[in-house]
Amino acid sequence: MNYPNGIKKEVVTRKSKDTISYQNRGMSLENDINTSNEYYREIDKAYVYKKPTPIKVTKVDYPSRDKTVIREAFYTVPSTTDYNGLYKGYYIDFEAKETISKTSFSLSNIHAHQIKHLENIDRHQGIAFLIVRFTKLNETYLLLAKDLTNFLNTNDRKSIPLSYFKEYGYLIKDNYNPRVDYLKIIDQLIGGN
Amino acid sequence: MNYPNGIKKEVVTRKSKDTISYQNRGMSLENDINTSNEYYREIDKAYVYKKPTPIKVTKVDYPSRDKTVIREAFYTVPSTTDYNGLYKGYYIDFEAKETISKTSFSLSNIHAHQIKHLENIDRHQGIAFLIVRFTKLNETYLLLAKDLTNFLNTNDRKSIPLSYFKEYGYLIKDNYNPRVDYLKIIDQLIGGN
Repeated sequence: MNYPNGIKKEVVTRKSKDTISYQNRGMSLENDINTSNEYYREIDKAYVYKKPTPIKVTKVDYPSRDKTVIREAFYTVPSTTDYNGLYKGYYIDFEAKETISKTSFSLSNIHAHQIKHLENIDRHQGIAFLIVRFTKLNETYLLLAKDLTNFLNTNDRKSIPLSYFKEYGYLIKDNYNPRVDYLKIIDQLIGGN
Repeated sequence: MNYPNGIKKEVVTRKSKDTISYQNRGMSLENDINTSNEYYREIDKAYVYKKPTPIKVTKVDYPSRDKTVIREAFYTVPSTTDYNGLYKGYYIDFEAKETISKTSFSLSNIHAHQIKHLENIDRHQGIAFLIVRFTKLNETYLLLAKDLTNFLNTNDRKSIPLSYFKEYGYLIKDNYNPRVDYLKIIDQLIGGN
């Protein structure tokens, strides 16, 4: 069957909860963001890309002079976030995550060095944020790095409650094309410049 | 033998010219830039990273619940450049290449869509450039995307002569730490802002 890129995987992920792998989790939001970024590029609005998944290659074959086949490799922990790029001269950097919780977003979804990275970007005048989708509520929020940091500095909780997203984050409204129009929020934020 | 990261590979690359693989080419400049970027991060000056090499995974094993082993995968052509990041609020984006020629840099070293990407970045107020090292001359140049574009628009040549780098590029002087202090050039360029 010829599914569009990624769709098949998503269906599998949704149906067989017990076998969700780390690599497949969040695939739906990821697809929506990827197509949104493609759209932004097509209309020459912004150049934001998903970074390739970091993989440590341990064995390769060279079946012919010009061909390399990787025979053994492992997914490694990313040192930064998944997405970065350029919009109106601004450096954009974010991580995107889905949660099936209806009440909170567990911080175990983000690595400590990713949080540190977002803080670094924020401090150096980049625009750093999380995009979090509560899949069962069908609500997607943008939370700026400074508000993430603020939460971490003032809480011992291991998860960010939905109410915090509602108060400090920005709801990204459902849209047809682009699916996740996060630059609309960024436009509000940089509007004064 | 315990070589520092990358050193062993470099020696192999240099000694056995005939077996230089695509993946190993340019390893020495790559290492120098990677350590320079690490240095910039350590002193909280800039956050520029090399993107992971894009790999298409075609077969995986799950020997245990939490473990994924990639059993077959292939290197794919990158859609953008190798390096990007943030410096003083500026979006930085570049590709780095070595050449053993003493007279020119062959344009076959850069993919057409990478050139297009650098042009896109330049047009949207990012700082886009090439870093090219003439290894036999031990000279490393930074060439801005606009000067690359200008060359392409005014020439039918398949390579950029060294003289063009000397006239329009910026020589990155040898340095101990960071090895490739390209931000010194960027400082000159943004000095007026």
